[in-house]
Amino acid sequence: MTDLKRREIFGVAGAGLAATVLAAPALAQSTPKLTWRLASAYPNSLDTLYGAAVTFARVISEASDGNFTIQVTGPGELVSAGAGLEAVGAGTVEMAATGSNIFTGVDPTFALASHVPLGVNTRMQNAFWYDGDGLQIWNEFFAKHNIYCMPMASTGAQMGGWFRKEINEPDDLAGLKMRIGGLGGRIMSELGVVPQNIPGGEVYAALERGTLDAAEWVGPYDDQKLGFEQVASNYYFPGFWEGASMGHFYVNLDAWNALPKAYRTMIRSAAAFAHVQTLAKYDDRTPTALKELVAKGAKLKPFSKEIFERAAEATDRVFAEIAAENEDFAKMYGLLTDASNDGYLWWRFSEFTYDNYMIRNRS
Amino acid sequence: MTDLKRREIFGVAGAGLAATVLAAPALAQSTPKLTWRLASAYPNSLDTLYGAAVTFARVISEASDGNFTIQVTGPGELVSAGAGLEAVGAGTVEMAATGSNIFTGVDPTFALASHVPLGVNTRMQNAFWYDGDGLQIWNEFFAKHNIYCMPMASTGAQMGGWFRKEINEPDDLAGLKMRIGGLGGRIMSELGVVPQNIPGGEVYAALERGTLDAAEWVGPYDDQKLGFEQVASNYYFPGFWEGASMGHFYVNLDAWNALPKAYRTMIRSAAAFAHVQTLAKYDDRTPTALKELVAKGAKLKPFSKEIFERAAEATDRVFAEIAAENEDFAKMYGLLTDASNDGYLWWRFSEFTYDNYMIRNRS
Repeated sequence: MTDLKRREIFGVAGAGLAATVLAAPALAQSTPKLTWRLASAYPNSLDTLYGAAVTFARVISEASDGNFTIQVTGPGELVSAGAGLEAVGAGTVEMAATGSNIFTGVDPTFALASHVPLGVNTRMQNAFWYDGDGLQIWNEFFAKHNIYCMPMASTGAQMGGWFRKEINEPDDLAGLKMRIGGLGGRIMSELGVVPQNIPGGEVYAALERGTLDAAEWVGPYDDQKLGFEQVASNYYFPGFWEGASMGHFYVNLDAWNALPKAYRTMIRSAAAFAHVQTLAKYDDRTPTALKELVAKGAKLKPFSKEIFERAAEATDRVFAEIAAENEDFAKMYGLLTDASNDGYLWWRFSEFTYDNYMIRNRS
Repeated sequence: MTDLKRREIFGVAGAGLAATVLAAPALAQSTPKLTWRLASAYPNSLDTLYGAAVTFARVISEASDGNFTIQVTGPGELVSAGAGLEAVGAGTVEMAATGSNIFTGVDPTFALASHVPLGVNTRMQNAFWYDGDGLQIWNEFFAKHNIYCMPMASTGAQMGGWFRKEINEPDDLAGLKMRIGGLGGRIMSELGVVPQNIPGGEVYAALERGTLDAAEWVGPYDDQKLGFEQVASNYYFPGFWEGASMGHFYVNLDAWNALPKAYRTMIRSAAAFAHVQTLAKYDDRTPTALKELVAKGAKLKPFSKEIFERAAEATDRVFAEIAAENEDFAKMYGLLTDASNDGYLWWRFSEFTYDNYMIRNRS
């Protein structure tokens, strides 16, 4: 996920609603009547990421026999797209559905919760969160912002974005105005790119006019809704800054602690259900989207090995700088780098060999 | 998963318990007191696959505030390892946790629910089950056996197994006595292997004595418990007949239909939670297991391209034969082949290029 596309509007709307729920005492009843508000950072045109919250809310409602209702709102309704962290932490709403990378400016550690540039792939990222103490370690960090955090959705490996011109060598990136944010933007800026913060609705026109040279979004299924292939047809892969990308559910920590255990368990399992379904949706629907994009003129091109290498050098340099002055970042980046090194040590055998054979000979 | 390792004991124990639950009328109350029995085909020494049912039962109990209890039993306690299909269909127990491939003998279509030789990988398999109408289409088949079926766990791409001698060419497989069952065994028999049905506990001794030349199990994390590296140190990859492998929860269809909606939703989301967690457990713990196995003498070796090619020819031939006389098999194999072709059409771009770079340059 890009950082920019979900922080187009800032500030918290509806602040008058704040903290009313939190004034309630700890809930003694095991399945009390309860209504929560969940602010999604994703517009409902993204049926993938917005849909994850809708699925989650439906499961909670059904499992609680209608006692626990979660009202899903889109960006700008109660909370703007870039304000989920603040709004949930303060109790303006009980929950948010958001990428964590959009809070890179608050603390770059947040970005690592969503994606690790040139790090873990999707399965490895899930392994970190769902086995061992990954969830707990991450929540030691999120607790500092009064939030309980869970995985909500994975997109799989994202695309590198849409470029007006071909990018053959690292030098072709110099001076390129590209819509890309957060740590991805930071790394790309080391390669000469000038990261731009442009609202999603304006990207198409900016690419058409040439005030923007490139833009990254998600992958074929979400991207096809925006028509970028008409104005920047070179569609590069992979998004090496987002080889895996995860969105999260945030829960206000006081509200979380006040919940009866039954509801906490429902939330955890409903979140897992939404998570599995959303990745399945991406994986199931992307091939058709890809074919349609190519039919409309998208030209699929890999980033060169030299660009990967420059990006890897930049990542190591930039991340060492951040880690030197940010203990949380240093800790999480260390753990996730170990997870990636170990993960790929194994991945190269059965998984990769199988995929390699299937791609070359069987599909 | 091997077919054999979970069909060591046949027949249904405790048949006297049969159908007592099913005599109950449809449940009017939304969260009634209910106790179900779940028969796992996996011994509790497999903390991965047995553990999935334990996690599932815990989530149901917590989410229902103790009203819905699921008693998990191991193979041979109420139902033997190979009898989950029959026992759940007949209502001896309400649920089973089992590989579906072990029922290849009943109908080879079952095997395709667990794995498609030289077909979908794990993400594509999940995409088929969790998005679109995969779950529904599969359950049209399972309904013929009075069962509602859900994904329970994925192992990821399995290993090809442990071999006493090196397998360099297809001819090296000729006459090899190998513990492998179901469709994997059928394909390997086309390559000259003589599939053997030997109880798990006897495999080590048989490999040591040389009455068995090879055996496949799961992957490093489960395999390390059995010590095969001491008697058959050539550890081949991948298990091309199980590039993805899924275990299932079976629910007696009458019991399922009689459940209040709240409980059906709890079951579906608890199953998804168990599924995510189990794959995470495999992915998180396999690297350490692999390192330990190699330290103890396991030699990792890829099957040759020629063996893949022979296996692909054999798969096409054997599956065409089965499809010609089995409509369900033909339908599901057709759909899953489409899913694999489409899946790999996309996989080759961002996912594979990212993994390839990471394996070669970054880990």
